[in-house]
Amino acid sequence: MSSLEPVLIAGKWRQSTGEEFFQSANPQIGETLPEKYPVSPWSEIEEAIEAAAEAYQQLRRVSPERIAAFLDKFADRIEARREEFVQWANSETALPCEPRLNSVELPRTTNQLRLGAAAARERSWCQPVIDTANNLRSCYKAIGPVCVFGPNNFPFAFNSAAGGDFASAIAAGNPVIAKANTSHPGTTRLFAEEALAAAEETGMPSSIVQLIYRTSHADGARLVAHPLIGATGYTGSRRAGLALKEAADKAGNPIYLELSSINPVVILPGVLEERAAAMVDEFVGSSLMGTGQFCTNPGLLLLIENAQTSAFIEEIKNRFSKAPAGTLLGSGVEKSLLAGFDALVKAGAEVIAGGNSAGEALCSVQNTLLQVDGDQFLANPTGLQEEAFGNACLIVTARDQGQMVGILENLEGNLTGCVYSHSDGDDDAIYNEIEPVLRQKVGRLLNDKMPTGVLVSPAMNHGGPYPATGHPGFTAVGIPASLFRFAALHCYDNVRHDRLPGELQNANPTGNTWRSIDGEWSQKDISQQQ
Amino acid sequence: MSSLEPVLIAGKWRQSTGEEFFQSANPQIGETLPEKYPVSPWSEIEEAIEAAAEAYQQLRRVSPERIAAFLDKFADRIEARREEFVQWANSETALPCEPRLNSVELPRTTNQLRLGAAAARERSWCQPVIDTANNLRSCYKAIGPVCVFGPNNFPFAFNSAAGGDFASAIAAGNPVIAKANTSHPGTTRLFAEEALAAAEETGMPSSIVQLIYRTSHADGARLVAHPLIGATGYTGSRRAGLALKEAADKAGNPIYLELSSINPVVILPGVLEERAAAMVDEFVGSSLMGTGQFCTNPGLLLLIENAQTSAFIEEIKNRFSKAPAGTLLGSGVEKSLLAGFDALVKAGAEVIAGGNSAGEALCSVQNTLLQVDGDQFLANPTGLQEEAFGNACLIVTARDQGQMVGILENLEGNLTGCVYSHSDGDDDAIYNEIEPVLRQKVGRLLNDKMPTGVLVSPAMNHGGPYPATGHPGFTAVGIPASLFRFAALHCYDNVRHDRLPGELQNANPTGNTWRSIDGEWSQKDISQQQ
Repeated sequence: MSSLEPVLIAGKWRQSTGEEFFQSANPQIGETLPEKYPVSPWSEIEEAIEAAAEAYQQLRRVSPERIAAFLDKFADRIEARREEFVQWANSETALPCEPRLNSVELPRTTNQLRLGAAAARERSWCQPVIDTANNLRSCYKAIGPVCVFGPNNFPFAFNSAAGGDFASAIAAGNPVIAKANTSHPGTTRLFAEEALAAAEETGMPSSIVQLIYRTSHADGARLVAHPLIGATGYTGSRRAGLALKEAADKAGNPIYLELSSINPVVILPGVLEERAAAMVDEFVGSSLMGTGQFCTNPGLLLLIENAQTSAFIEEIKNRFSKAPAGTLLGSGVEKSLLAGFDALVKAGAEVIAGGNSAGEALCSVQNTLLQVDGDQFLANPTGLQEEAFGNACLIVTARDQGQMVGILENLEGNLTGCVYSHSDGDDDAIYNEIEPVLRQKVGRLLNDKMPTGVLVSPAMNHGGPYPATGHPGFTAVGIPASLFRFAALHCYDNVRHDRLPGELQNANPTGNTWRSIDGEWSQKDISQQQ
Repeated sequence: MSSLEPVLIAGKWRQSTGEEFFQSANPQIGETLPEKYPVSPWSEIEEAIEAAAEAYQQLRRVSPERIAAFLDKFADRIEARREEFVQWANSETALPCEPRLNSVELPRTTNQLRLGAAAARERSWCQPVIDTANNLRSCYKAIGPVCVFGPNNFPFAFNSAAGGDFASAIAAGNPVIAKANTSHPGTTRLFAEEALAAAEETGMPSSIVQLIYRTSHADGARLVAHPLIGATGYTGSRRAGLALKEAADKAGNPIYLELSSINPVVILPGVLEERAAAMVDEFVGSSLMGTGQFCTNPGLLLLIENAQTSAFIEEIKNRFSKAPAGTLLGSGVEKSLLAGFDALVKAGAEVIAGGNSAGEALCSVQNTLLQVDGDQFLANPTGLQEEAFGNACLIVTARDQGQMVGILENLEGNLTGCVYSHSDGDDDAIYNEIEPVLRQKVGRLLNDKMPTGVLVSPAMNHGGPYPATGHPGFTAVGIPASLFRFAALHCYDNVRHDRLPGELQNANPTGNTWRSIDGEWSQKDISQQQ
């Protein structure tokens, strides 16, 4: 078995003790790639956990400045090897090298790492709260080793060894156990190589990142439930995510999930009177971008039936039919997309464009629109909210405003919800009626804007009510907020001053750390303030 | 069945449709109180949920000022009826009227309600984060109807219809479904009466609080898992809490638990050299205060074996034996305390003081000390961490510093951990070795101070790692931080300005709301800032 790719545990690349293996495939040409990746047995996973637990103890004595230096160096090293990253990711996912991988996703990834570095350095993320009269001081601190399970659709920006969860976990002071997404293990291995090299260059504990490629379902559950694990970040399918959640919940280990989301887009009547052509462009562009393989892809379009709506639907049908069908991330995505159509049809939807394998490339499905009316939707709201992940959308036409509200009331939790309305206020009455309903169902509410394109901003919420995620109070995107997922609240009561962490001592630890001191946010030292 | 006490649902006191009932008892005289409280059947619980869900929709249109007015008015009304409250609580719990109920717990309770009012009014709790360049704005908002299960040991301050969880849930904009603790249903009913009256006086939705007294275990699980429930706050026994957690987790509903905690107190050798007599006073005082019935009661005392330690233990043994045994909250507490001794003895501990029913009053147990050495503890760390809730403590004597670290490494998650050390630094080396271990096991770390007395401060953390609570990132005490448990993150992306909630509009909504605007915390308007 010497031909299996090595795993990274305790700072060393080494042969896996596993005997089973898997291979990834190039979805563009349908060819299996030559590398063989091991399925790690439990004993190996346990070693990874123990190495991470040791790194966690070491990290408590590592300065935030060094953590920041590591993240910055890691970003630099990724950029230095960017061509190789792009080639690997393209061969494993069929995502285009340009602009997607090289000019969009790779810069986003290194930006996230550098924002993580800046957050670690500034230290405001840990929200020091100081009650000087009672010498009671609290802040957020690292929670412990973090398991990251990355999704198939962002080989860089959500990669378990370099993406948003990784950057957040490390910036908060936690080591990571990266479980590669099995659709791009080679890309993930490259990241882990550069992470280890960056750790060595910056004097970080070498066990700061472990990489395994695959586990059995049972071992995945044992991993997230292990008493030495601090928390888990998971992005992926609902079924696998909920199995991990059950195990983690039972063990009392926090787990943050980003599961499926159909991201309802509501177009109010005034929009089609005002700007139907622009609306078509915007909707079709967002829908088919990246072959629809985004967590925030608009999967449900809701309108009120009338002549303009019919014309609008006709037009997007034409556009969907004419647009080339992109290559999907893999044969699994193709299969589940086609199965999704079947499920929606069974639940009452009609295919009005596409619906079949495209045949153009090996992993490709026709751009697809399905439709139901409001009565049909309300007859089976659960079945009609099955996610069909890819270049497809379900159109729901409501009889009237009242039925539109009823449909929104029946939506599950989603990451996003968009409302397009007339720019001069013609739709305001209906907006005011639907907003309270939609607001409760989504993490991010948009106006006149498509949900794709998740900005990395402190004000972003890439989260939402269950089952879009596991908890509506946390975001997976947006630094520093995403760090909270991987932090515990540490209170110091009457603790002697020189024993306090720097963030809670009287002097501002950096000069620019924001702290809430006796109810006021400031960057001051405490002696100055008093 | 017309003699059953009424439940409060949808703003009306009404006869329960339940046929089963229970009664509470006066633990001081062992007499069953005459009132009969219904066990609510599922249909009634469902009506409570639906009423709360409707109130939740109404509350979205209620100003924070009105919510604050309600909480203030509720506090006033409690004070106006304070003698009745104190009488009821005393008869149901045997807690002393003075100072405990009238001069400590009642003021603490009204203070919490007023702090909740102030937080609602100031609005800083919702942490508005605004990215002006991208018109992306986020803040925390009400999560939905909150179920509150209060504990037996704080009939006022943690009461499900008036305590910390109630104040936090309402201040964040959520209605409450209060499930009374069955040891003090009469006190809880009084609170609900005043809450309803305060709601009517301040023009709040009358369904802002529902009161039920008891459910079957299965219906309790259905309640916390119901899709209309936003979150649950639970304080109580580990077994009942974990059953609710399992149901809520499975449904994807956030639940915050405060379960058992043994609150390790570590006394380092220098302390007994320096101030043994004061240490005895401090320890015995905290241990026996309130007959030991606090979540933060010191249940495990850890020292290093030597002659001074033996003398110290001898002295606290004397003090425990001489001190009068207080009355416990009820016969259930007495029974479980005695069972706790048996379990600890079976696990290897020896009773060195007390250990039996006191016989003085009907619900009373001798002040009890148990002891094990470090080897014994390490042979059965799980069994020796069973909580014996009440006037009892387990002393663990470690052979040396190394074994002390080993014992701390084997501790479960706790709310608090205390370290006493020599004031001139003689214990600093050992402090530095044990601190990293203890820090990871507790929510609040104390120096030279006992854990009892949980200050209501913004810097407090009354939380900790599992199984002390369900998530180490949240606190149940300390306003505004405790409000986060009952809030969801709401992001507004490109939403038109007049459609934004007040907290996210350009003008500061109150003039003194703290907001993070483009990375700076300020109380400014946005036009001023730009």
